[in-house]
Amino acid sequence: MNRIIKTVSDEYKSTFDTFVKRNIEILGENLVGIYLHGSATLGCFKPNISDLDLIIVINSNISDQIMKLARRIKMQENKYDHPLFFEKYSQMERSKNGLAGAGEWETLKRILPEFQNKHVLDLGCGYGWHCIYAMEKGASSVIGVDLSQKMLEVAKQKTKFKEVKYICQSIEDVEFPSDSFDIIISSLVFHYIFDYKALIKKIYQMLKPGGELVFTVEHPIYTAHGSQDWCYNEAGEKAHFPLDHYFYEGKRETTFLGEKVLKQHRTLTTYLNTLILAGFTIQQVVEPVPSDNMLHDPEMKNELRRPMMLIVSAIK
Amino acid sequence: MNRIIKTVSDEYKSTFDTFVKRNIEILGENLVGIYLHGSATLGCFKPNISDLDLIIVINSNISDQIMKLARRIKMQENKYDHPLFFEKYSQMERSKNGLAGAGEWETLKRILPEFQNKHVLDLGCGYGWHCIYAMEKGASSVIGVDLSQKMLEVAKQKTKFKEVKYICQSIEDVEFPSDSFDIIISSLVFHYIFDYKALIKKIYQMLKPGGELVFTVEHPIYTAHGSQDWCYNEAGEKAHFPLDHYFYEGKRETTFLGEKVLKQHRTLTTYLNTLILAGFTIQQVVEPVPSDNMLHDPEMKNELRRPMMLIVSAIK
Repeated sequence: MNRIIKTVSDEYKSTFDTFVKRNIEILGENLVGIYLHGSATLGCFKPNISDLDLIIVINSNISDQIMKLARRIKMQENKYDHPLFFEKYSQMERSKNGLAGAGEWETLKRILPEFQNKHVLDLGCGYGWHCIYAMEKGASSVIGVDLSQKMLEVAKQKTKFKEVKYICQSIEDVEFPSDSFDIIISSLVFHYIFDYKALIKKIYQMLKPGGELVFTVEHPIYTAHGSQDWCYNEAGEKAHFPLDHYFYEGKRETTFLGEKVLKQHRTLTTYLNTLILAGFTIQQVVEPVPSDNMLHDPEMKNELRRPMMLIVSAIK
Repeated sequence: MNRIIKTVSDEYKSTFDTFVKRNIEILGENLVGIYLHGSATLGCFKPNISDLDLIIVINSNISDQIMKLARRIKMQENKYDHPLFFEKYSQMERSKNGLAGAGEWETLKRILPEFQNKHVLDLGCGYGWHCIYAMEKGASSVIGVDLSQKMLEVAKQKTKFKEVKYICQSIEDVEFPSDSFDIIISSLVFHYIFDYKALIKKIYQMLKPGGELVFTVEHPIYTAHGSQDWCYNEAGEKAHFPLDHYFYEGKRETTFLGEKVLKQHRTLTTYLNTLILAGFTIQQVVEPVPSDNMLHDPEMKNELRRPMMLIVSAIK
């Protein structure tokens, strides 16, 4: 084995050594080298290691296998299965009130295609609200995929339709034959995905010709800066929302419900043109605003000051 | 004549009276009423009047005529024909060095369609750089429209191709038969246009089936706040770019080359979905970044921190 190992600085030496040791255990002779890299890549391995900005170079014939292994580690460690985080998430409006508690729902509902007699896949289904909705609208079958075991337990309790099947899996690992689905939906998940291009390519394959992909994602403007918080004036009021680092794609470590969460920032250009290059035709691009009946809440009214979400509808 | 006149407050009384008087002179018995309105509408009339946020209600059978008249006033008063502003504009990199001086050019060039044997319309052609480029790439004919007489004088001096025709007109007034053009381009003009939807509808009609529209516009993120300037830290460095008022579409009064300039802010949703609803298929949406050879300039490097421009390519 021809092993090449480099590291950034002494500061990281011991963390790095532990990391290498761990990977040698996992990869054995398949470890060809470990390279340092300027951008975020290892969010999918171990969050505390991701700070190192590493790329592991392995024999390509086992790379798929390794990525799956890495994602299984990620699943074991995913925030949504941490008891405290899960508890906090359960208390959010959108968790308690379902679709009606989500500011974007009225807009998303108008963009979603007809579900009647359709085969549907929901990537990152969480509590299964959209799966249930699709069934209520006459879908033939729905598969919901999520990496959180706890979320799926709740989803299963809520779901009365036997045509809905839940799978506990990282959405990057989803494998279905070509032309399996009429509709693929995904709500607020793609900004966690490291390899968006590979995922879109896979989604395109899994969709039937004329099939539709509708997804919501945190708006690139919202993920760019990293803080995901407003700038406040001296009186403590929200002065404006800060924008920075827009064209520097990659990981952003942000705080959600008091916990550190790792997201992937990418530009609008990347979100849209990746779809177009994969063969999709873009049907709608919408930045949702809360519905009128929510605007009495000052926090919801602030949502008119900057786009937080992007809804994209595309057809194969 | 049944005239209804209302005004906001005493503060604006005298300005308003002058405005009404002027409009009665122009419209005579066709003036049905003058209404106040919460959003920006009269940028196209007189900049100093636009602060009033008025809508003039006139007999619809003469509304086209009146809008043309209003735009003629706007043309007479347009900033680009003010000697001082024009002088400052002439000194900008993009004015002195043409396409090579424009940060977005390398990206735009890749997105522009093949010009060979094509009939081209350039809306807001300015110095005519894109008209000349289209001819160099083999276009059959090019029409450049701009409301600045001074810009067109320079364009005519620069242009050696007799197949290029320049017209001094507001781009909202452009009238050509259906299916007249293979390609319509527009560079950094649509954020000055009040009625984007009407313009896109007209462009769609003027394009042949399969014809392409490529335009650049100031990015909605760049126009939203209004200041179009960074927030600075105590050391005077650019801390971040401020974002606010995003979903409040309408006029923004900003400063460009030391002069007050009136722009129209609209969201990304509006820019893209108006095209889709008009019948276009979106081919590319790109936020350009300066080319590598420009990044030695710290100001250009700051362009990686927030998107300033949007390039859209759409096909009929």
